[in-house]
Amino acid sequence: MTTTGPGRPRKQQPSRPGATARDEILDAAAELFTTQGYAPTSTRSIAEAVGIRQSSLYHHFSTKDDILEVLLAGTVAGGLAFARRVCAEVAGGPDGGGGEGSSGDSPTAAARLHAVALYDGTQLCNARWNLGVLYNLPEARSARFQSFMADRNELRGLYRRLGAELPANGWAGTSQNGDLAFRLVESLVNLRADGLSTPDSPLQAADAGIVLCGLAGSLAAVRAGSAALVASIG
Amino acid sequence: MTTTGPGRPRKQQPSRPGATARDEILDAAAELFTTQGYAPTSTRSIAEAVGIRQSSLYHHFSTKDDILEVLLAGTVAGGLAFARRVCAEVAGGPDGGGGEGSSGDSPTAAARLHAVALYDGTQLCNARWNLGVLYNLPEARSARFQSFMADRNELRGLYRRLGAELPANGWAGTSQNGDLAFRLVESLVNLRADGLSTPDSPLQAADAGIVLCGLAGSLAAVRAGSAALVASIG
Repeated sequence: MTTTGPGRPRKQQPSRPGATARDEILDAAAELFTTQGYAPTSTRSIAEAVGIRQSSLYHHFSTKDDILEVLLAGTVAGGLAFARRVCAEVAGGPDGGGGEGSSGDSPTAAARLHAVALYDGTQLCNARWNLGVLYNLPEARSARFQSFMADRNELRGLYRRLGAELPANGWAGTSQNGDLAFRLVESLVNLRADGLSTPDSPLQAADAGIVLCGLAGSLAAVRAGSAALVASIG
Repeated sequence: MTTTGPGRPRKQQPSRPGATARDEILDAAAELFTTQGYAPTSTRSIAEAVGIRQSSLYHHFSTKDDILEVLLAGTVAGGLAFARRVCAEVAGGPDGGGGEGSSGDSPTAAARLHAVALYDGTQLCNARWNLGVLYNLPEARSARFQSFMADRNELRGLYRRLGAELPANGWAGTSQNGDLAFRLVESLVNLRADGLSTPDSPLQAADAGIVLCGLAGSLAAVRAGSAALVASIG
């Protein structure tokens, strides 16, 4: 990662990802929020990191909160869209949606939960900045960001719905299935912050979610169904 | 929780827990850091929340960082002391320390891991303020707080050590045992921030840690051994 000093000539060296100034602003803000903190970062320092004037930044975002809102939404958008697709396909038919129209067998509920966890966790681990570290900010918990929290709650609800479709697991019924998988995936944020995440971490989290459902013995089949789902929807 | 306005006469109404002004400062700071955020909270606002002068606060803490350091240390101190005791007792003898001197049978490695997770998770859930929300603050990850991070890493290491003593679990060997339990316990912080933790949550996290070790079938015995350990050490 090259360091981009303030005031560098933007037009000549667009070193941040993104085709537009808006994307560059989001990337610079994400870097500063996750490395310096949200409150200590000013819109001025964001503009400087991009190499634009503060007034140009205000052309794209009225406030720092508006930037955070877009960034937080981005942390759940991919996982939520995927989970909605997975659940919508299932709703198409009784007991798993049947095989019509899809390639091969209908994925089991366990494969669907695994796929959602794997896809969601991969997004969290592969995003350029570890924005999940901002989830517990008191600021992010305020009403200002209720739209993000609503998305995150919907995602948690889809995990729960998929978990509730599994057979009782013998140690805690089905009540915890989805929630524990959701928590294991979100714990990837901490793992990454601790410098301990590896390319295998999302798969391990998804696997662990399935083991907690009492399905350790079916893990190979669940993984295969999950991989097929990710390939067809993701 | 009663609200304590700034400037209330401290001597007459010590409404915050703690016998000393230092304890009251820590409590007020914990409330403000977890509800308003760390960066936005000034030492002046902490002093006002206690009902003392800012100069009196400086008699106890030179900087806001010094206050955060004490608060962060407090989130791991109990769990770490307990885990050290659990591991030290085991080191007293081969293959689990034997039964001499202790009351009854030597606890299994699984019971020890369960007890550490249960004790640690209970501390996180029962603390007056959910200070774990500050773990991912970029500020808390700076060298200034390396002593806290060293304690947290030692605690994670003890989870890992206990997890490594268990038999291979059939889905991921033993490499993940301790780490997943540690992550499930820390995820109680998020659960609490989401308003979803219950009195059963620490036990559920400890149970889940054991299930991930492939020991769902022994959960009742593991719980019993764990409860005995917590009663004798905790």
